[in-house]
Formats: sequence, structure tokens, C-alpha cells
Amino acid sequence: MRKLFLFIATSLDGYIAKPNNDLGFLKMVEKEGEDYGYEAFIANMDTIILGRKTYDYVLQHIGASHYDNGQHEVYVITRTEKPSVGKTNFYTGKLAELVHQLKSENGKNIYCDGGSEVIHELLQHDLIDEYIISIIPVLLGSGTKLFQDDRPEQELTLVKAKSFETGLVQLHYQRKR
Amino acid sequence: MRKLFLFIATSLDGYIAKPNNDLGFLKMVEKEGEDYGYEAFIANMDTIILGRKTYDYVLQHIGASHYDNGQHEVYVITRTEKPSVGKTNFYTGKLAELVHQLKSENGKNIYCDGGSEVIHELLQHDLIDEYIISIIPVLLGSGTKLFQDDRPEQELTLVKAKSFETGLVQLHYQRKR
Repeated sequence: MRKLFLFIATSLDGYIAKPNNDLGFLKMVEKEGEDYGYEAFIANMDTIILGRKTYDYVLQHIGASHYDNGQHEVYVITRTEKPSVGKTNFYTGKLAELVHQLKSENGKNIYCDGGSEVIHELLQHDLIDEYIISIIPVLLGSGTKLFQDDRPEQELTLVKAKSFETGLVQLHYQRKR
Repeated sequence: MRKLFLFIATSLDGYIAKPNNDLGFLKMVEKEGEDYGYEAFIANMDTIILGRKTYDYVLQHIGASHYDNGQHEVYVITRTEKPSVGKTNFYTGKLAELVHQLKSENGKNIYCDGGSEVIHELLQHDLIDEYIISIIPVLLGSGTKLFQDDRPEQELTLVKAKSFETGLVQLHYQRKR
């Protein structure tokens, strides 16, 4: 069965962004020729799920081509109905139903690209199969938390821990069955 | 100069205890003959700082001998004056002043054994020099956060990342000067 992956960067104190969606801290670990496994990871995905706020952020800061490049089926989780653009779909239904549907179909794996609200809902329904979390060597002190409070407990199996010259540590876990 | 170390275990989602101070999740990584470097670590410390709630918890669950073994000068940070017991002192003054005083004296390093409130105050005054954080492979979902919100930003240098058979990953960082 297809698996749902989280692939995300966080500060050591658990923030995925500083206040006002400031992602500047990611620059600390930028290094020519080092993508921390992203290209190899994304090659195993054919579907991307993300929240509407994250989508708008990427549209504004990177451009629509980041998602709408014909390589992935994209589902933006939103409350506002909107016609699809290329392979980008705006989904207003129940997130858990979408994920169950996608997992029942054939294909490569599914990548959740955030944000915090979508991750929280996926965790509440125990829908994330694997976690690839890159820890940036900084305490941000405040911002958007990767893990919001009030979720069920979930044991994990460590698949791999890898550290990089920049001080980034990438942790890979699987959900324990 | 003497350094202040944090040496603590947390779940992947950043909790040092489940609600009601439940530390049961630490059992997941208990393994005969494996102390995750604690003995070597504590041999380099001669002073321990900890919060009153953490002290009471240890008194109740482990016993006074855990701290009051003559090997370390212990400072329990509390609001209630109390006479010293052996080398255990009850400190009602300002935490930052105590730490500045201790750092100015000669000796081995200083170990902060938690809890969350003492860690928060130390971080607000930028007093922690090194962090040894053991990540337990579990999402607890709720409980006491290792890092409370609203602290200054602090860049770190990764010293070492080490993973163990049990799935525990130990991250060692230094404060960037």
C-alpha cells in the first residue's frame, strides 16, 4: 500500500517557521550541492498534500511551478472551492477521507508538505506512515510548532539518523504497527 | 570557565513528561548495560541545578540518595526557604545570579536536571552552554514541553549525533558564541 510521508525541517525547539511565516532560518543550512535527500525522496512520491496557507506561501515566495510541474498530483486542503489548475486540485472535503482514498489507489507514495494544521489533522487520524524530520541547529524561541498539543500517542521505529556538515541532523522514523 | 549542561530526554514531539509527570515512556529505551553516556557525563559535573517540582518527583520515585550522595553540590530552585540537607541547598534567590556565581567559581561543570520552568528561565538568560538531548522514538501527543514558547533565538553548533539500537538518538549541541 502507498505510504504517506512527512518530510520537513524544524528547529531544535520544534518550530517550522518563526512568527509571520519567516523561514529565514533554513538559510543556515543551505549548501551548494546539498539537498538533504530531497530529490531522491520526491522521486518516490507522485502525490503531494498540503495546506492552503502553505500553498499560498509557496506561490508567493517560489512560484506555482514548484508544485504545478506536471510531475505530481497536488491536493491543496482548503475551505474555499476552486477549479483545478493543471494537476493542482483544491480539496474541500474531509482530509482523512482523501488520504484513505489515495492510499487505496495504486501509485507511488504520498508526500505531506505541511503546514502545521494539516499535519495535526493527519496525526489525529494516525495517517502518517513515515517521518523524515531535519533538525536545524537553532533554537527559534517562538513561531509555528511542528507538533501541536492534544494528539494520540504513537510509538515510532527509528529507521535512520544522519548528520550533515552544516549541523543539520535528519531523523527518519516509521510508525510502529 | 565552567559550563552549564542540559542532559535530558524528550519525545520526538518535544515532551519531557506526559500529563501528571508520567515518565513511563522512558522505559521504552531501557536496556541492560546502556546508560546513554550518563555515567561519563555526570563524572564531569560537580554541581546540579534543578527545579523544586523535579526534586520532589525524584525524592518520591527514586529517593533522596539520587542527589544527596556527597558527590555533587545540589541547588534546588524553590520559592520556599528550607535549611540545607547534606550538600543539597534550597535556593530562593534569582536563578541567573546563582548561575553567574557558580560559573565564576572553579570546579567541574554544572548540570541542569530540569524541569521545564528552570530550563525556560535559563534559556531566557542565555545561560545554557551545552545541550545533550536524547530523543525517544515516540510521539506522546501531550504533556510537559521541553521548550516553552517565548525565548530569544539562539544559534547552535552540532557537536555530535549518535543513534542507539533502541531507537534513541542523542544530539549534542553547543551554544554558538
